[in-house]
Amino acid sequence: MNALERKILEKGVVIGEDILKVDMFLNHQIDVELIRQMGEDFYAHFCHKPVNKVLTVEASGIAIACFTALKFGVPAVFAKKGYHKNVGSNVYSAEVFSFTKGISYQITVMKDYLTADDHVLFVDDFLANGAAAEGVIQMIRAAGATLEGIGIAIEKGFQPGGDKLRGQGIDLYSLAIVEKMKEGSILLREHEA
Amino acid sequence: MNALERKILEKGVVIGEDILKVDMFLNHQIDVELIRQMGEDFYAHFCHKPVNKVLTVEASGIAIACFTALKFGVPAVFAKKGYHKNVGSNVYSAEVFSFTKGISYQITVMKDYLTADDHVLFVDDFLANGAAAEGVIQMIRAAGATLEGIGIAIEKGFQPGGDKLRGQGIDLYSLAIVEKMKEGSILLREHEA
Repeated sequence: MNALERKILEKGVVIGEDILKVDMFLNHQIDVELIRQMGEDFYAHFCHKPVNKVLTVEASGIAIACFTALKFGVPAVFAKKGYHKNVGSNVYSAEVFSFTKGISYQITVMKDYLTADDHVLFVDDFLANGAAAEGVIQMIRAAGATLEGIGIAIEKGFQPGGDKLRGQGIDLYSLAIVEKMKEGSILLREHEA
Repeated sequence: MNALERKILEKGVVIGEDILKVDMFLNHQIDVELIRQMGEDFYAHFCHKPVNKVLTVEASGIAIACFTALKFGVPAVFAKKGYHKNVGSNVYSAEVFSFTKGISYQITVMKDYLTADDHVLFVDDFLANGAAAEGVIQMIRAAGATLEGIGIAIEKGFQPGGDKLRGQGIDLYSLAIVEKMKEGSILLREHEA
């Protein structure tokens, strides 16, 4: 069991059937030593790939992207959320539907920071339906960049995003996969031997 | 001249009279090694203070807060921007007027992550009119927490935020202070001996 999995079991709070509240260490208050360790874990998994850029989506992916990028010795880039006035020919953008919030939002990356020369590791805090990942993949394709892999902190294994991405042959590595959860109980998927 | 100042002079682009574009290393693409160094610089300045939390505002402050918090061995917390459905009795909030965008936005921190026991170092990427800092100070006061200091990456010395905050007796430390700028030229304030 890795440090993130221990922390989820110790601190995570399940709300309703679908929300895993981890904002005491991951996405509001940040346990930086834990995230630094997660960056090392992503590096250990993806270090044989020619990653030259770590991409994420603001805001909660930024800490993870920074510590991962530091290990690789490459820049981090975060896609911006929301409709920006300056969305024009100088950006790649994609529509992402948030199942949690029931609304669509736009993510954008300036073309200067995602190019055909880039070998991208995409990292994010959560993977559920995979909508954000698909938006990012769309931007990576539009740029002619190469997706080297996806690193996720917490995958909701009972939602379809992970299977969909693995089915496309993507190297998806999740540090913790929640198999089932309900109020007061979280079951994590065991790692393959 | 520190690493950030060198980077600003090398890469920064002045747009119009007021905008310093540094999104190639600070607030869209992130030079993580530079930001890690900035975290060390903030630590060197504030390490004699009993800081137990590094606070920032999403999104571009998060990287700076994480590397600073890592040096202090304390958690980072980022205030969320925008109107959230769940703003209620469980959060501190403040209105911030953005002079750049000409609109107000709300910043919020959950009460769980900002308390009367906290000794806060606030860090951010830019300081101009000081509106975001004042919103953060308002939340810190509402929580009964102690503001130990403010660390800023780039202060616009020709705008009033810095003087206002120093006038309140706040320990404000800016890694780079832009004295004047116009298209094609950036003048940085020299450090006091």
